[in-house]
Amino acid sequence: MNTFGTRFRVSIFGESHGEGLGVVVDGVPPGIALCEADMEADLARRRSGARGTTPRKESDLPEIVSGVFDGHTTGAPLTVLFRNENTRSGDYSNLVSHPRPSHADRVAAEKYKGCNDYRGGGHFSGRVTLGLVAAGVVAKKILARHGVSVTAAITALGGETDSGRWDEIVEEAVRNLDSVGGVIECTADGVPTGWGEPFFDSVESVVAHLLFSVPAVKGVEFGNGFRAAALRGSRNNDPIISADGRTATNNAGGINGGITNGNPVVARVAVKPTPSISAEQQTWNYTTASVEPLIIKGRHDACIALRAAVVIEAAMAIGLAQFAPE
Amino acid sequence: MNTFGTRFRVSIFGESHGEGLGVVVDGVPPGIALCEADMEADLARRRSGARGTTPRKESDLPEIVSGVFDGHTTGAPLTVLFRNENTRSGDYSNLVSHPRPSHADRVAAEKYKGCNDYRGGGHFSGRVTLGLVAAGVVAKKILARHGVSVTAAITALGGETDSGRWDEIVEEAVRNLDSVGGVIECTADGVPTGWGEPFFDSVESVVAHLLFSVPAVKGVEFGNGFRAAALRGSRNNDPIISADGRTATNNAGGINGGITNGNPVVARVAVKPTPSISAEQQTWNYTTASVEPLIIKGRHDACIALRAAVVIEAAMAIGLAQFAPE
Amino acid sequence: MNTFGTRFRVSIFGESHGEGLGVVVDGVPPGIALCEADMEADLARRRSGARGTTPRKESDLPEIVSGVFDGHTTGAPLTVLFRNENTRSGDYSNLVSHPRPSHADRVAAEKYKGCNDYRGGGHFSGRVTLGLVAAGVVAKKILARHGVSVTAAITALGGETDSGRWDEIVEEAVRNLDSVGGVIECTADGVPTGWGEPFFDSVESVVAHLLFSVPAVKGVEFGNGFRAAALRGSRNNDPIISADGRTATNNAGGINGGITNGNPVVARVAVKPTPSISAEQQTWNYTTASVEPLIIKGRHDACIALRAAVVIEAAMAIGLAQFAPE
Amino acid sequence: MNTFGTRFRVSIFGESHGEGLGVVVDGVPPGIALCEADMEADLARRRSGARGTTPRKESDLPEIVSGVFDGHTTGAPLTVLFRNENTRSGDYSNLVSHPRPSHADRVAAEKYKGCNDYRGGGHFSGRVTLGLVAAGVVAKKILARHGVSVTAAITALGGETDSGRWDEIVEEAVRNLDSVGGVIECTADGVPTGWGEPFFDSVESVVAHLLFSVPAVKGVEFGNGFRAAALRGSRNNDPIISADGRTATNNAGGINGGITNGNPVVARVAVKPTPSISAEQQTWNYTTASVEPLIIKGRHDACIALRAAVVIEAAMAIGLAQFAPE
Repeated sequence: MNTFGTRFRVSIFGESHGEGLGVVVDGVPPGIALCEADMEADLARRRSGARGTTPRKESDLPEIVSGVFDGHTTGAPLTVLFRNENTRSGDYSNLVSHPRPSHADRVAAEKYKGCNDYRGGGHFSGRVTLGLVAAGVVAKKILARHGVSVTAAITALGGETDSGRWDEIVEEAVRNLDSVGGVIECTADGVPTGWGEPFFDSVESVVAHLLFSVPAVKGVEFGNGFRAAALRGSRNNDPIISADGRTATNNAGGINGGITNGNPVVARVAVKPTPSISAEQQTWNYTTASVEPLIIKGRHDACIALRAAVVIEAAMAIGLAQFAPE
Repeated sequence: MNTFGTRFRVSIFGESHGEGLGVVVDGVPPGIALCEADMEADLARRRSGARGTTPRKESDLPEIVSGVFDGHTTGAPLTVLFRNENTRSGDYSNLVSHPRPSHADRVAAEKYKGCNDYRGGGHFSGRVTLGLVAAGVVAKKILARHGVSVTAAITALGGETDSGRWDEIVEEAVRNLDSVGGVIECTADGVPTGWGEPFFDSVESVVAHLLFSVPAVKGVEFGNGFRAAALRGSRNNDPIISADGRTATNNAGGINGGITNGNPVVARVAVKPTPSISAEQQTWNYTTASVEPLIIKGRHDACIALRAAVVIEAAMAIGLAQFAPE
Repeated sequence: MNTFGTRFRVSIFGESHGEGLGVVVDGVPPGIALCEADMEADLARRRSGARGTTPRKESDLPEIVSGVFDGHTTGAPLTVLFRNENTRSGDYSNLVSHPRPSHADRVAAEKYKGCNDYRGGGHFSGRVTLGLVAAGVVAKKILARHGVSVTAAITALGGETDSGRWDEIVEEAVRNLDSVGGVIECTADGVPTGWGEPFFDSVESVVAHLLFSVPAVKGVEFGNGFRAAALRGSRNNDPIISADGRTATNNAGGINGGITNGNPVVARVAVKPTPSISAEQQTWNYTTASVEPLIIKGRHDACIALRAAVVIEAAMAIGLAQFAPE
Repeated sequence: MNTFGTRFRVSIFGESHGEGLGVVVDGVPPGIALCEADMEADLARRRSGARGTTPRKESDLPEIVSGVFDGHTTGAPLTVLFRNENTRSGDYSNLVSHPRPSHADRVAAEKYKGCNDYRGGGHFSGRVTLGLVAAGVVAKKILARHGVSVTAAITALGGETDSGRWDEIVEEAVRNLDSVGGVIECTADGVPTGWGEPFFDSVESVVAHLLFSVPAVKGVEFGNGFRAAALRGSRNNDPIISADGRTATNNAGGINGGITNGNPVVARVAVKPTPSISAEQQTWNYTTASVEPLIIKGRHDACIALRAAVVIEAAMAIGLAQFAPE
């Protein structure tokens, strides 16, 4: 459900327009220096503000409620709480009868028998990833102890890989009251050989599980990924060129048989265009029982991929932290 | 590790050249008609024999050891055992010092400190998917009770989507002592609205977790998947056109916010070319401590995708069975 | 670790003298009427105030941070937060070098390498059961939908089963700067036949797991429990006297083969005397490296059993809620 | 359900009169010397033969199906299979309409809608503990690497603690066509400080979870257990007398705050008298819809406690193995 992991366990909670949201992280080793300020850099990367991101401004101030004492983690559950501030719930009043296409509005209403908090998507809001980012900060500190660093960045926006054109693409989407998707690549350097478990807890399985938890992610691939499906083995294989397992190429994205092989772990993630667009759409109106036009009010991101790289980074870090030895 | 699932729990075991392999399935509802013969159709789809598949012939006869009484499941754990028959372990003797590129040989040796059963890949062999197929047969029977059917088929081989050219592509790979990858698409029809859990147990997360457990899978996408990353929201959104949630298009692959929306669930999977090719490759020789040529002996599939569709189907079915109400 | 359950999942967090503590509850069905006031009755039963309980006064005001909307549960994770108010952390400064006998002080320091929050026992404090009580309120509301009610009460204090003598026993313990243990019996009425799972998730296993999580619990028995070990089968067996499984006696405590049999589920729990007593004790002094007298400062309960019945009730309710059908 | 554990995961399967039963153990470290013969000593302790045990003779020959190669564990799942041999299923034909008191017959029929394998109790049979014993052998080998040894023995039979009288007590039960319960004490020596997790995964919680999985166990206590409830704190506390945490007494049974404290871990278990007695009993007859006499046919143990010590030992070992560092 809303908990993931065995060794490093993350439980997220909260809604977009409720009292607050956050995360409980269990399995944090004792003695890691941690304070609220440590989270600011990653939270800032997720925060809106740039062109193409929502005009809703949230300060996203984390409060560490438990698990830290004298500036260090204690080994007990770490709780990070974010209060919601800038909520305009009135904006969402029409989404119950008139659910947004490709959003969770309708499925949530049906699954939870109309009891779900529909304001701003409620628990299905991308805002819930705040907790993931906070947990990611801790995961990255754990990984750093093992010499592992994780970084993610956009590699394509709207199908365009030339970053020089991205501003223009986003601008055009905003101008057209539309949205645009993107691809994010995430690399973990320094992962030792032997992380991961055969079969169900392969590194790909665990990391993909987390990556697909991030709202808007519709595709995940490792190494050559879908390109591998078009290749011959002689071209896709990675010759081992060193006793430590270093390979001449890294088509496998650092993973063989579900286990890390000592090369960088590389994943790519497809982020769909935000379904909340301001242009008129068609959708079912449950009050009138007919397909009708919908104009979505509220404040939305034209390109959620712009804010997602740090979330993907967090997901990868949380996934790898499952395998870090104690 | 080698167990997956809460409500429908699958534990696989066994090695390619050991006594046998199989699966324990827990959470099977009582009263499902089941016998060994029910598994034959799916096992046959996974079996080798076609051009481009391994000359190792195994009868793959399942034995139901527990969980069935008087021709029906009892509700107690179901165990299905397959004995290995056609093992030629001598073939693998040189893989310890001279690990196959892009295979688990080296990482397994390192992770398990040289104690792993290296014969035929041991527990990392694709042969372990026999247990997954057996569990998939049961999962599909459970899903059928809810009106859900799952089917998977190859949609591309070696980058070619025209199926008329696939024989030729496989033939060419065999001739060149090479291998070739493919793409498999899997569709689940009849899935009701509301399956899946927000955040970590989204349908995408759970199904992708299982799909990435299948050896050789390097990419997974749902609905438009990676194509969505290149689209505008106005083009990727699915207008709702009916009170039951039916949409005009199915770009979401039947899933919104991680929850099924009543439309078919559609996943696509990238299967890499078999790393075991007969052509000469370079790899590290741990005895001589240098890069040296390797000629892989043993019997291998030139195109494992040819046998993988039913495995993908099983993985999807096991994933969806997690969400089927009791 | 600090999470329990699959269907109804409880994650507790917090420390005795930190910012706060609480619980995240996942798997709560939507549509249950719930507000902070609903928790007051149970919280009051756990609160100190009576003779023999700690003079530390806490208002224990719950704040529902997530999971409730318009007065009803939403189906998303429910978070309940309690702020600590009346903390006097200076009291605990000497417990690092001079750990209290039979308390977690020393093991926590060793396990967490000196990074644990030692103030008031930190995360090992009985105060952490506040979150359990809050989760228990919800579990009892779920059970009530199935006609199940849970009640717990003290049946013995200091070895005395005559409740008329309990005040005197507690008074004597207080007077002697000592503490005293007790036995609590918990009964769940109305549990249908068939809850529980064979083998590892027997009702006894799941409920005992939770009961032993409660600090100070050192024994758990069901039905005749330890008395059964002294009986003959002819005397311990429960004749079935009705088609619905009602039995003439309930020596089994409502559970056969780990599965409920339709009779009341009855558990008894041994609560040890509070280890924190004011009388002088001997313990190891890590500064002087010798056994030395210890006088425990701080504010403690002479009889924690007086406050524990509602915690036991919560544990039983959370345990049974794992088996309640959706 | 039928799987327990995270780090050392045990999945049991099988029925009393089916093809066979056994266990899959995951998380076994590689390199442990293991063969079938290593299990014989423990299996022999569980085997019938003594006065007061069932006349059903089973050779209980384990077959290691997976997870061992060249005489050592591989790190992959270990599967141990036992074939049933001496089954007389005809004996159980009347138990469907006329369920045995205090046995799982009725609850199993109801829970599994009449599809359960009722022969000899099916999956609810004590015979299923064979798999637990096999897993216990492995768990004990893992613990031995950490200097931990586990032993269990009967301390009371039929309420009598003087072992000189036990033969007579059993003999009398057999003569009276009755059965008799007992108490088993289990001690783990050499457990280091710091095993266990605060709150839900306390050592008591995890070990009790397993102990209550063993059929016929109705009570579990640690250290002074229920006696502690009658004591004053000054009498129940254990003075620490050494820097390594050694205590003058071990009233806590080696566990403080759910965490091991370096002293022996001591648990006591109440085993009820076998419900299957040969003397006439009353129970509901579902065919005639009235209470009627029942004479149980089949072959049963008059004192199952005689065979249970090694099962308790296995449960304790499996529980502690969850906490053994890698």
